[in-house]
Amino acid sequence: MTTGSRLLGELIDALRCLPGVGAKSAQRMAFHLLEREREGGLRLASALESAMRDVGNCTRCRNFSETPVCSLCASPSRDKQVLCVVESASDLAAIEQATGFRGHYFVLLGRLSPLDGLGPDELGLPLLAERLGEGEIEEMIIATNPTVEGEATAHYVGQLARAAGIRATRLAHGVPLGGELEFVDRGTLAHAFGSRQSLS
Amino acid sequence: MTTGSRLLGELIDALRCLPGVGAKSAQRMAFHLLEREREGGLRLASALESAMRDVGNCTRCRNFSETPVCSLCASPSRDKQVLCVVESASDLAAIEQATGFRGHYFVLLGRLSPLDGLGPDELGLPLLAERLGEGEIEEMIIATNPTVEGEATAHYVGQLARAAGIRATRLAHGVPLGGELEFVDRGTLAHAFGSRQSLS
Repeated sequence: MTTGSRLLGELIDALRCLPGVGAKSAQRMAFHLLEREREGGLRLASALESAMRDVGNCTRCRNFSETPVCSLCASPSRDKQVLCVVESASDLAAIEQATGFRGHYFVLLGRLSPLDGLGPDELGLPLLAERLGEGEIEEMIIATNPTVEGEATAHYVGQLARAAGIRATRLAHGVPLGGELEFVDRGTLAHAFGSRQSLS
Repeated sequence: MTTGSRLLGELIDALRCLPGVGAKSAQRMAFHLLEREREGGLRLASALESAMRDVGNCTRCRNFSETPVCSLCASPSRDKQVLCVVESASDLAAIEQATGFRGHYFVLLGRLSPLDGLGPDELGLPLLAERLGEGEIEEMIIATNPTVEGEATAHYVGQLARAAGIRATRLAHGVPLGGELEFVDRGTLAHAFGSRQSLS
């Protein structure tokens, strides 16, 4: 693109690595930063650099962390008896924001998918089994996504829990709050119908 | 937000300085970069830093440039006899992309708006007058936005051209291509009706 400035062109190009940002948005962002937000742009540059360079994975739960053990694992105020297994760090963030869960997490960084070369080792399941063997955990909440691969992963992880004699639970499936029955997909509706609960 | 990583939290926070990016998109962008685009993230960090620090304004046309004279002004292949006056560098980019214009530009970096403290000096009009006085320019295309302030600016800039004995032109107003008459606003329709042209 001709803008008369090489650096501006490079910035517009680089911004396109952000998800959901195309040529037009990248251009808008670059002009906005140059015209009104140079401070913010510099702060973003240094935040990006530190995060890309220093953020690795927690050795205990595989969550994103710049320290060997992440702050959630290191926190003494969290309940060591409940472990929630999620597919990704963004699922962890969603659960932290939505629920009052105060236990620990284990992040699989993926789901079982042999075709993509993702087996038990890639998901850190040996590390998870080791952790279950420590004897502190009493309940494991399996919060993988309700997709075919997520369900297969949940099944596999559930077996690990059974082998260690730990109670495994799964998130409830059903009609989402605020949804309309008319627009809920058939599978979900059938599941919700089958798992109906008595009014208490 | 609790994500277990301070750097990740700071990155999510810093991403919100981008226009149109709220808490949820910033989180999505940060996770995407960390999980799949570390290379791109680092490239973006360095592009941002160079652009924020080094991009200034061209001393001839006030367009964004990291050199004293921007590449458009320095290019020997562009027509020195036509000057296009625009409000912002993004307007310049839009014209470069849409039209075959090969002349020079002058960027006002705003529009006349006395209430916001934007007078002729802030818009670099003395610099523009000086340039018109050089005697090379034969036509000045005034491409300010068709808003009240843009029109006032166009009027003022037009007077400068008249004082220097230079022909001033204005972008045509009318019904946009692909638009439907039914949905065009009244002012535009009245203008298009009044300025109807004979079929050639």
